[in-house]
Amino acid sequence: MAATSDDPRAFITDEVKESLTTPDFDMWHYSREQCVYLIEYMFREQGFVEAFQIEEEILETFLHTVRHNYHETPFHNFHHCFCVTQMLYCIIHACDEVEFFLTPLERLSVMVATIIHDLDHRGLNNNYHINSRSDLAINYNDQSVLENHHCATGFRILQRPRCNILQHLSLEDYKFVRKTVIACVLSTDMGKHFSQRSQWRAVVAEFNPEDATHREWLCRMMVCCSDISNEVRPWWVSRPWATNLMEEFFAQSDREKIEGLPVMSFMDRDQAQLEAGQVGFIENILRPLWQEAAELLPELQPFIERINENLAHWVMFMQHKRSQILLHVVEESHKPGISFNAGDVIVRMGEISSKMYFLRAGTVEVRAEDMTTVWDTMGQGAFFGEVGAFKGIPRTANIVAKTQCEILVVGRDDVLELLDGYPNHVRFIEDICTERLEKHAKRQEAAELAEHDLIEFAG
Amino acid sequence: MAATSDDPRAFITDEVKESLTTPDFDMWHYSREQCVYLIEYMFREQGFVEAFQIEEEILETFLHTVRHNYHETPFHNFHHCFCVTQMLYCIIHACDEVEFFLTPLERLSVMVATIIHDLDHRGLNNNYHINSRSDLAINYNDQSVLENHHCATGFRILQRPRCNILQHLSLEDYKFVRKTVIACVLSTDMGKHFSQRSQWRAVVAEFNPEDATHREWLCRMMVCCSDISNEVRPWWVSRPWATNLMEEFFAQSDREKIEGLPVMSFMDRDQAQLEAGQVGFIENILRPLWQEAAELLPELQPFIERINENLAHWVMFMQHKRSQILLHVVEESHKPGISFNAGDVIVRMGEISSKMYFLRAGTVEVRAEDMTTVWDTMGQGAFFGEVGAFKGIPRTANIVAKTQCEILVVGRDDVLELLDGYPNHVRFIEDICTERLEKHAKRQEAAELAEHDLIEFAG
Repeated sequence: MAATSDDPRAFITDEVKESLTTPDFDMWHYSREQCVYLIEYMFREQGFVEAFQIEEEILETFLHTVRHNYHETPFHNFHHCFCVTQMLYCIIHACDEVEFFLTPLERLSVMVATIIHDLDHRGLNNNYHINSRSDLAINYNDQSVLENHHCATGFRILQRPRCNILQHLSLEDYKFVRKTVIACVLSTDMGKHFSQRSQWRAVVAEFNPEDATHREWLCRMMVCCSDISNEVRPWWVSRPWATNLMEEFFAQSDREKIEGLPVMSFMDRDQAQLEAGQVGFIENILRPLWQEAAELLPELQPFIERINENLAHWVMFMQHKRSQILLHVVEESHKPGISFNAGDVIVRMGEISSKMYFLRAGTVEVRAEDMTTVWDTMGQGAFFGEVGAFKGIPRTANIVAKTQCEILVVGRDDVLELLDGYPNHVRFIEDICTERLEKHAKRQEAAELAEHDLIEFAG
Repeated sequence: MAATSDDPRAFITDEVKESLTTPDFDMWHYSREQCVYLIEYMFREQGFVEAFQIEEEILETFLHTVRHNYHETPFHNFHHCFCVTQMLYCIIHACDEVEFFLTPLERLSVMVATIIHDLDHRGLNNNYHINSRSDLAINYNDQSVLENHHCATGFRILQRPRCNILQHLSLEDYKFVRKTVIACVLSTDMGKHFSQRSQWRAVVAEFNPEDATHREWLCRMMVCCSDISNEVRPWWVSRPWATNLMEEFFAQSDREKIEGLPVMSFMDRDQAQLEAGQVGFIENILRPLWQEAAELLPELQPFIERINENLAHWVMFMQHKRSQILLHVVEESHKPGISFNAGDVIVRMGEISSKMYFLRAGTVEVRAEDMTTVWDTMGQGAFFGEVGAFKGIPRTANIVAKTQCEILVVGRDDVLELLDGYPNHVRFIEDICTERLEKHAKRQEAAELAEHDLIEFAG
C-alpha cells in the first residue's frame, strides 16, 4: 500500500522501522491506533502476510478488534499488549538462533500469542477473581483464570470470518498454531513462573531444535520474557509502567477492602513500596527469567545489561526513600539539629566514635585521608557514621560539609532505642553499612596495590 | 425423617442400605429419582449432614438440581453419576485406611466430586469438542474441556443459595473443599490417565498420611477408580453399560461423519469391536488403575477379582466373536463341509497332519489319550488342529464328535492363502495356538508328576 497523506501508516518511516526492532522504541509517542499499524507492519516485515496468505483487510480488522477488546485499565491495556508484542519482535530480530530454531509457523504463533495474551483484562488479577468467586473464576475452576480467558477471547475473535487471519492455513497448520498459542498464553500465568523456570532449565541443558517440545518451550519462554519486559526498556519508557501498575493494583485493593476480600500488601496503597517491590520483582523474577533465556539465546545479553541499569535506578530510589523514612523516624525523637558551615569537618578519618549522623539539610563530601580526593557526595536524607557506631571501627573516611548543613547527631544506643520495633530500618542500616565496608576494603586494597607499584618503581 | 407411605425414601430398607455398601448393588432397579434419595442417604450415613450442618431441604434441592443437569444420554447420564458415587461409597466402606487417612472434609469433597463429575455431559467427548471447535472447546482452550465444564457447572449449582450444601463451612474449609473437588474432577480427564498413574506410583511408594498433597492424590485416585468402575460390578449390572457406551460412541461418530470430522475407530459403528475394546480397556486402563489403588488400599483386592471375572467374560466373548468371523471368512471360500456322527474321532492324538478344522455346526469333545477323560468341549464356531498345522507338532489330543457335526477341513497352505490380508485373524489363531500349547505343556507336566507319584508309591 502506497503511503498517501491519508494513509494511517504514513508515520511508519524508515527511522521508525529501525527503532521498532530495538527495546529503545518509545511507544508512549504513538497512539493505540498507531500501535495497530505498527503490529501490522511487523506482520508484513516478518513475511507472515505472504507466507500465510493473510488478507490485508482481515489483518487490519483483527488488530482493531483486538485493540477494542483491551480495556482502558492503567496497565493491562492495548499499549501493554503492544509493548509485549514489540519486545517479542526485538527478540526475534536480535537472536539469530530464533530464526534458526523456529519455523515461520512458530514465529507466527508467538506473535499471535503476545497480541491476544491479555485480552479483556479488566485490571483485576487472578487472586481477586478467585477470592470474589467471580463468574470467570467459577468458569475456569480457579485454574489460570485470566490466562484461559484471554486466550479464549483471542480465539473467539479469530473465529469471526472478518478477523480470521488463520483462515488460509491447512487444518494441520491451524491445529499447530492453536496448540502453540494456547501453550504460550497459558504460560504467562505468573503462578506457574517458578515451576516453568525449573522445567526450562532442564530443556536448555539438552536443547534440541529438532524436538518439537523443546521448540514449544522456547516459544513459551520468549512470550513470558516479553510479558515482563518493561524493565528492559530505557528508564523513561519503563518508569511510567511501574506507576500504572501500582495504580491498577491500588484500584483492585481498594475494591477488595470494600468487598471484604483479602488484600495483598504489595497491592495495598497503605503498605506497598513501589521501589522495593520493583527491586524484588527484578531480582527474583524478571532478571532470572531473562538470564535463563540468554542461556540459549546469548544475543539477549545486552537486554540483561539494560535490566541491570534499571535495577540500579530502582535500588538508588529505594535507598533514598528508606533514608527519608529513617530520617523521619529520627526527627520524631526531637533530637536537636547541629549546624555546620561549608568546609567544616564533621567526621574525621581514624577517630573512634559511636555517634551516627542524619543529614536533615545540605550536602556533604566523603573525602580521603589527603582531604582532597572526593570519594562520594551525599545529600539530604543520607546518614553516615554507622560503621563506627555499630562495628566499633575507626572512622573510614573524612566527612566534610560542602554546603551549610543541618545534622541530627545520635549516639548508638539512642539509635537502637529509636529503631526498636522497626526491624526494616535496622536491616537497612546494616545493609548500607556492609556496602560501605566493602567499598572501604576495596579502596584499601587499591591503595596497597598503588603503594606496591611505587615501591616497584622505586626499586 | 420418619418413613411414611408418602415418603420417597421409604424404599431404602435395611437390606437396601446393606447392599448399597457393596459393588453388587444393582442400580438398574432404581429410578433416577430414587438414586437422588440413595445419595442423600449416603450423605447422612457418612455423617456429613450433621458434621457440616447441611440443611435437609438444601441437600435435596442440590441433588435434584444435579439430576436435572445430567442429560438423557445413553451413558453419561444421572445413573452413571450415581454408579460412580456409589462405588466411591463402597471404597470408603471397604477400606479402613480411607477413614484413617482422610478427614471428613476430604471425604465430603470426594463425594461432591463424584456427584458433579459429569454434569451437563451431552454425549460428546473432548475430541469431538476440540475437532468441531465447539464453544466449550474455545472457552477451555482445548484443555480438559469437559472436565472443566462439569466442574464449573457443579459450582454454579452450588452457588445457588437453595443448593449450597457448603454454606455453613468456614471460609477456609470451603476453599479446601473447592480445591479438592476441582482437583478430583479435573483428574477424571482420561487424557491424563497415564501420567497420573505414574505420579500416583511415586506417591504410593512414600505415602505419608500427614502430607496434604498425598491425601489429595488419594482423593483423586478414589474418584478416578470410581469413574471407571462398571467392570467392578456383577456382569448383569455392568454389561448394559458397555452397550450404552457404544450407543453414545456411535451417535457421536455418526455426527462426526456428517460434519466431516475425524472419527476414532473404537467409536465407529463400522469398525468398533465391543468385546476386544472392553478387553483392551480393562487390561490397559481399568485394572492397572485399580491394582495401583490396591497397593495402598489392600481391601480393594476383592474388587480386582471381580474385574478379573468380567475380563474373563469379555475375553470369552471376544474369542467367540473372532471365531465366528474367522469361520465366516473360511466359509466364503466355499470349501465343502464334512459331516461327522456323534462318537466319530475327528482328530487322533499323536498323528501328524497339517489340516485345520472349523466347526460349522455341532459340538466336539477334547479327550485325553485314554479316550475317556474329557479335557474340554467346543461348540459352533470353534476351530482346532492349528497346533499340528502350524507348529508341525503331532496332535496333542483326541477330538471326538459329541453330536452330529459339520466341519470345514482346510490344509495349512489354504488357510494361509484365505487369511492373506487379515493379519488380525492370523494373530488370533496364533494366540489360541499358544494358549493351547501352554495347556498341553501343563497337562504333560501334571502327568509326569502323577507318574512320579506312582513310582514313589510303588517304592
